[in-house]
Amino acid sequence: MSAAVPPARDKLLFTPGPLTTSATVKRAMLSDAGSWDSEFRGVVARIRQRLLEVARLRDSSDWTAVLLQGSGTFGVEAVFQTCVPPDGKVLVLANGAYGERIAQILQVARIEHAVLRTAESVPSDPAALAARLEADHAITHVAAVHCETTTGILNPIRAIGRVAKEQGKVYVVDAMSSFGGIPIELEGSGIDFLVSSANKCIEGVPGFSFVLCRRSRLAGCEGHARSLSLDLWAQLRGFENNGQFRFTPPTHALLAFDQALNELEAEGGVAARRLRYLENHQVLLRGLAKLGIRPYLEPGVQSYIITAFRYPAHPQFAFDVFYRKLSDSGFIIYPGKLTEADTFRIGTIGRLFPPDLEQLVHAVSRVLEEMGCAAPALERDQQGRSCDPMPAGES
Amino acid sequence: MSAAVPPARDKLLFTPGPLTTSATVKRAMLSDAGSWDSEFRGVVARIRQRLLEVARLRDSSDWTAVLLQGSGTFGVEAVFQTCVPPDGKVLVLANGAYGERIAQILQVARIEHAVLRTAESVPSDPAALAARLEADHAITHVAAVHCETTTGILNPIRAIGRVAKEQGKVYVVDAMSSFGGIPIELEGSGIDFLVSSANKCIEGVPGFSFVLCRRSRLAGCEGHARSLSLDLWAQLRGFENNGQFRFTPPTHALLAFDQALNELEAEGGVAARRLRYLENHQVLLRGLAKLGIRPYLEPGVQSYIITAFRYPAHPQFAFDVFYRKLSDSGFIIYPGKLTEADTFRIGTIGRLFPPDLEQLVHAVSRVLEEMGCAAPALERDQQGRSCDPMPAGES
Repeated sequence: MSAAVPPARDKLLFTPGPLTTSATVKRAMLSDAGSWDSEFRGVVARIRQRLLEVARLRDSSDWTAVLLQGSGTFGVEAVFQTCVPPDGKVLVLANGAYGERIAQILQVARIEHAVLRTAESVPSDPAALAARLEADHAITHVAAVHCETTTGILNPIRAIGRVAKEQGKVYVVDAMSSFGGIPIELEGSGIDFLVSSANKCIEGVPGFSFVLCRRSRLAGCEGHARSLSLDLWAQLRGFENNGQFRFTPPTHALLAFDQALNELEAEGGVAARRLRYLENHQVLLRGLAKLGIRPYLEPGVQSYIITAFRYPAHPQFAFDVFYRKLSDSGFIIYPGKLTEADTFRIGTIGRLFPPDLEQLVHAVSRVLEEMGCAAPALERDQQGRSCDPMPAGES
Repeated sequence: MSAAVPPARDKLLFTPGPLTTSATVKRAMLSDAGSWDSEFRGVVARIRQRLLEVARLRDSSDWTAVLLQGSGTFGVEAVFQTCVPPDGKVLVLANGAYGERIAQILQVARIEHAVLRTAESVPSDPAALAARLEADHAITHVAAVHCETTTGILNPIRAIGRVAKEQGKVYVVDAMSSFGGIPIELEGSGIDFLVSSANKCIEGVPGFSFVLCRRSRLAGCEGHARSLSLDLWAQLRGFENNGQFRFTPPTHALLAFDQALNELEAEGGVAARRLRYLENHQVLLRGLAKLGIRPYLEPGVQSYIITAFRYPAHPQFAFDVFYRKLSDSGFIIYPGKLTEADTFRIGTIGRLFPPDLEQLVHAVSRVLEEMGCAAPALERDQQGRSCDPMPAGES
């Protein structure tokens, strides 16, 4: 892994990210760019413009894209550090680890907040939101997670946005693992700030996050941030003043992202990418169902991004052995993060295609046999459930 | 630059970073690693251990290395966000933009501080520090910049450390552009926190910074940080608990850094790298002196890392034309950042060798001729001044 010559083929990553990326995306990193140089500044400008286009915001002048060094969490924190005034209060809709992480960000930043929780298997509830906003007029901001990576559950961000806007609240959406893979129409969504990162559905490499927001909304936030590095308004002014990041950008990750955007376009945009991920997910669910492995969530709320599966109900199943044997076969899956059930997770995003999922299912079958955990024939006959919880118009 | 196939040869970067890196360092990024996977966690553990070895801390158990996503500034901010208690006060020694940036970090974070300035051409003054500490007992922390990239001036960090320790202060050093290129003995230096980043003298690619510190000192800082992302103590606990970054790491930049550490070792460590950079610097100074271009600083305080040069005293000289013509020839230099003089800067670190500097000098000569700014013969005879301001034992 540390060798100068890479292996013939990396292990495939069925994770929430970092993901498997294309060889051409990685090869775009074989150049050293000067961050001050006009050519590189052109790349940054192009990336910012194309992110707006991915969100179908081509003709809107008030929307802008702000790139920020660091992981997705840095981007989420930057939004809250910047957009919440000293007398603001944030209501966080949470049903998993990433909603809780927003609450933790606010806690550490000493920003007033409350958390409206649903169970990890239950989507955030717009009606409960409306009731809470009626009851607590101190709330100024509403935060939601689109695809909660803990389970893969999809939250109704448009319905939440309608409630937030009816009550005149600023609305922040963590779309980390969904943006670029699930169509999101920002106009009319009520969303003021949407956060995602380079190494999710755009299929770049990790190194920075990005925020899509209304410039006018951000401009009102000057002086709120208690962090220089995470001041999103100062970051935007940097881009607007001279086309540069304020501080050293991850130049190679940006060159990779520019190429990843080329490849998203070549694939047919978000609509085509959605179909590939959906098919990946269906292949996975059908295949694992035949092995007696069931998803944690009901199909109506399950995204095609990542899926939490319950451990096989077999006394000899041990996740660490299962993980290691799959890894040795070239397939990296992900441990669970649920508080209420034993699960592991399999991501279906990144440079993965349905045949890769077929191979993974085959490897899972073989590993379970080796572990003596193969499901009885009865369960194997059970059919996988097809799953597309997002009807047209709802994102 | 955005093409999937990289050009035969990139422009060479004579900048403060991102720098020119080796082809093998870049090729280490051709793999996608799972951040949770044990193999990758092994890479992270190895990097943390090897950073201590670069600082000759192999046998000391209290020192630790903390890696943090983002640019070097994120690392500097993380130190101050984490290590200054609510009733703390930081005295910043400043003689350029990076000292001022520390003051700006403290300002935005609402951390009590004062700034002790010297002119941009004058090193920070330990005697003035001692006097200030005598006069203001509220000061708890002292911050200095080792190589101030604004000019390339080298500050006397050991002498500053002696004063700070005599007065019992916590001592933070921004060694961004020096660590790995200038030998620094941490033991006995008085330094509690030293910050640098991946894309400087270790010759990795940008994407993260790192902090070397005494674990016992950091352990006393729990609860100080007002930023989750920039909480250095929480970050260390993440590494200690499970070998992972708390949030998605820049996996490719870390693989590149691991390879860069291999190449530092293969070159002969910091001592050998110092000699290469020193020779780069001498070739540059001698060559430009023949063209009548003089460094801004006196040789006794000039580092061999980066050098600010005064504009040629010719009415037809225009920096933007000069820059563009050099860039078109494959050489990227850097604009000045001085408040008190017109300068440009040339870095002599990164994967650059003396013949690269010879080529740069040749290109500068040709470009000045083209611009009609060639120096008169009288000035061309002037000799460049050799420059190694760091006698053994002083870093």
